[in-house]
Amino acid sequence: MKKRNLFYAQSGGVTAVINASACAVIETARAQRDRVGKIYAGRMGIVGALREELIDTGKDSAKSIAALRHTPGGAFGSVRYKLKSLEQSAAEYQRLIEVFRAHDIGYFIYNGGGDSMDTANKVAQFARKMDYDITCVGVPKTVDNDLPITDNCPGFGSVAKYVAVSTLEAGIDVGSMPQTKVFILEVMGRHAGWIAAAGGLAGKDRSEPPHIILFPEVPFDEARFIDKVRESVERYDSCVVVASEGIRRPDGSFVAESGTKDAFGHAQLGGVAPHLAEVVRGKLGYKFHWAVSDYLQRSARHIASRVDVEQAYAVGKAAVEMALAGVHGKLPIIVRTSDSPYRWKVGQADLTKVANVEKKLPRNFITSDGFHITGACRRYLAPLIKGEDYPPYKDGLPVYVQLKNVLEKKKLPAWEG
Amino acid sequence: MKKRNLFYAQSGGVTAVINASACAVIETARAQRDRVGKIYAGRMGIVGALREELIDTGKDSAKSIAALRHTPGGAFGSVRYKLKSLEQSAAEYQRLIEVFRAHDIGYFIYNGGGDSMDTANKVAQFARKMDYDITCVGVPKTVDNDLPITDNCPGFGSVAKYVAVSTLEAGIDVGSMPQTKVFILEVMGRHAGWIAAAGGLAGKDRSEPPHIILFPEVPFDEARFIDKVRESVERYDSCVVVASEGIRRPDGSFVAESGTKDAFGHAQLGGVAPHLAEVVRGKLGYKFHWAVSDYLQRSARHIASRVDVEQAYAVGKAAVEMALAGVHGKLPIIVRTSDSPYRWKVGQADLTKVANVEKKLPRNFITSDGFHITGACRRYLAPLIKGEDYPPYKDGLPVYVQLKNVLEKKKLPAWEG
Repeated sequence: MKKRNLFYAQSGGVTAVINASACAVIETARAQRDRVGKIYAGRMGIVGALREELIDTGKDSAKSIAALRHTPGGAFGSVRYKLKSLEQSAAEYQRLIEVFRAHDIGYFIYNGGGDSMDTANKVAQFARKMDYDITCVGVPKTVDNDLPITDNCPGFGSVAKYVAVSTLEAGIDVGSMPQTKVFILEVMGRHAGWIAAAGGLAGKDRSEPPHIILFPEVPFDEARFIDKVRESVERYDSCVVVASEGIRRPDGSFVAESGTKDAFGHAQLGGVAPHLAEVVRGKLGYKFHWAVSDYLQRSARHIASRVDVEQAYAVGKAAVEMALAGVHGKLPIIVRTSDSPYRWKVGQADLTKVANVEKKLPRNFITSDGFHITGACRRYLAPLIKGEDYPPYKDGLPVYVQLKNVLEKKKLPAWEG
Repeated sequence: MKKRNLFYAQSGGVTAVINASACAVIETARAQRDRVGKIYAGRMGIVGALREELIDTGKDSAKSIAALRHTPGGAFGSVRYKLKSLEQSAAEYQRLIEVFRAHDIGYFIYNGGGDSMDTANKVAQFARKMDYDITCVGVPKTVDNDLPITDNCPGFGSVAKYVAVSTLEAGIDVGSMPQTKVFILEVMGRHAGWIAAAGGLAGKDRSEPPHIILFPEVPFDEARFIDKVRESVERYDSCVVVASEGIRRPDGSFVAESGTKDAFGHAQLGGVAPHLAEVVRGKLGYKFHWAVSDYLQRSARHIASRVDVEQAYAVGKAAVEMALAGVHGKLPIIVRTSDSPYRWKVGQADLTKVANVEKKLPRNFITSDGFHITGACRRYLAPLIKGEDYPPYKDGLPVYVQLKNVLEKKKLPAWEG
């Protein structure tokens, strides 16, 4: 069989383990020297392909590539850039195929969330339409855990572990300080409450922190929230709240809407915790503290879930194996075969089935009052945070790798997109 | 020698390692069964003594006490309660001595910061004045590192490590996302910038995150800050800022007490990070993210500094040894004997010298432009975050101990304070 080159790119918000998938893609492809020629990575995701900015990962040693497994962030740069429909952006798709053709890309591996799986799917379709011979495979990635079909999504387990550990630790702190009554931790989750739900693992039940969880799936009712906070303080002497950034009022507006939008057209959010703290202060007068995790939660490789790291590696490896087997327009997914003991395997799904569908928390994962997680939710979440996978340390800090990121020589005129 | 009982209490804001000091106090005292009778802990610090709420730590197993070494927060409850001068609050001091007398307390070990060392000192003085036979020893504790005399303060090394690791990880995240230009991390430090300074360890120099550090010691000049942010974004394509919660304007007012509105139109609630983000957006228009660590930073036992844990244990142990040797009115301190290799030992200082004095960052630890740390500061800080000391985990979460906290039977009428 003819040797072809491989193009890999990272897309959307990065995670603590997306580089573990990159590590797997490169290591697996390097082991197939008779099938795979050069292994390129897009500088800043798909934009790197459009601009013909192809990083030659062959310039980095096996040791550096191995270190990606324990390095957070996106080693080649990531970007929020959504290709429009084939009708609207034919020029972009044509440019991608030109770049792929110029560099003899036979394998396209795209690592991202729902929007990115949509991009991968469109590229897959367009290439076939243009009769360009390429195998396109997605690699699932999102801290939000909102991809359908796959049991869970690499990237989520580690942010879940960060949020559960942080809630546990902050809860102990609040419990030590009788003067502080309310603590609010704001976590990511624009439309789906998976990350907030993970905070619920910190306590055995709602008598332990967190006492209240606020999900985007449940309309935020200020009066009921205030009642719950008062009840918790009266009963347990404190109230720890984990709040999704994406909670909405009954009229559908975000509690923390900023008025600005990101490149995908999503509203930029932030500041739910200070808003809720102000509500608590105004209505109840309790002494409070609040924290906003923001990027810390998704970059916290130091407290990554071992299960998550293993799954991120497994889907990267499977993607290359699928591409080499000619499996086009699909992505590897995580299939759970047992809750306890937790067992999983890698399966496959069509990109079309995963693209642009948001998997929200099912109703039976949220208690009937809307403020906590159910036993079913615990059974689902618990295995995903299992195990530690510490990075190496030097002088008190994790040793994370910075690749050389040497660009391949361009062969085409500059892109005027 | 006659057996006497010991009273230990935790005071002020808790840390990731104050329980390691408690562990050392109890373990060291338990090993002196011929000298020490019961080992009590105050429920909620000194308030527990005033209310005669004495926790009998003898009800907890050696295994539980050993687990304090890796458990964050204050195991017996802590409180912000400052005794006034002997003249103003004679009744309180008298009550303390009554409680001590009723329970034959011969050793008083008080674990806290500057205010608490003041309390310990007053108790020491008053007991002598009342001819009550007791030996009073302090144990240094504060995340703020603002105690004088001691080279550093147990509790600080772990928050320093948390902030350095978080800045490193968030910096990698920001560097992966070319669309996000500015990231602001707000950390503790109301009057002293030690914690913010620790963020500076994340990069080898100011070309790496954090690009800007804001200290309470340096008046906040908005125009100069904006210039620095622009310069960083133009030069490095991003700007990571670590900001002390306690930064002030040239007129002395806290930036967090602005009374303005944040980026999301909500009333400003005391968050420096959202305020700075709003300034950046208004003046420069860059896409930004911000995080507020709050309690997470000081309870993050999962990423504690091994040096810090060892020092917290060492001062607890030394305090009991000092008390048994009749050393009254002093506290153990950390004495640095070498920067590299880092060497330290436990020394002693008078409580009067440590009480109510705030050690701020010396001028030569801050660069001449006021926005970063110097080599001298790095040499001082670097050893304090060294080494990891992971807690045990079960099912993905750290196993932290919850003591029984059984109260001793009261012997006195209720306190009407």
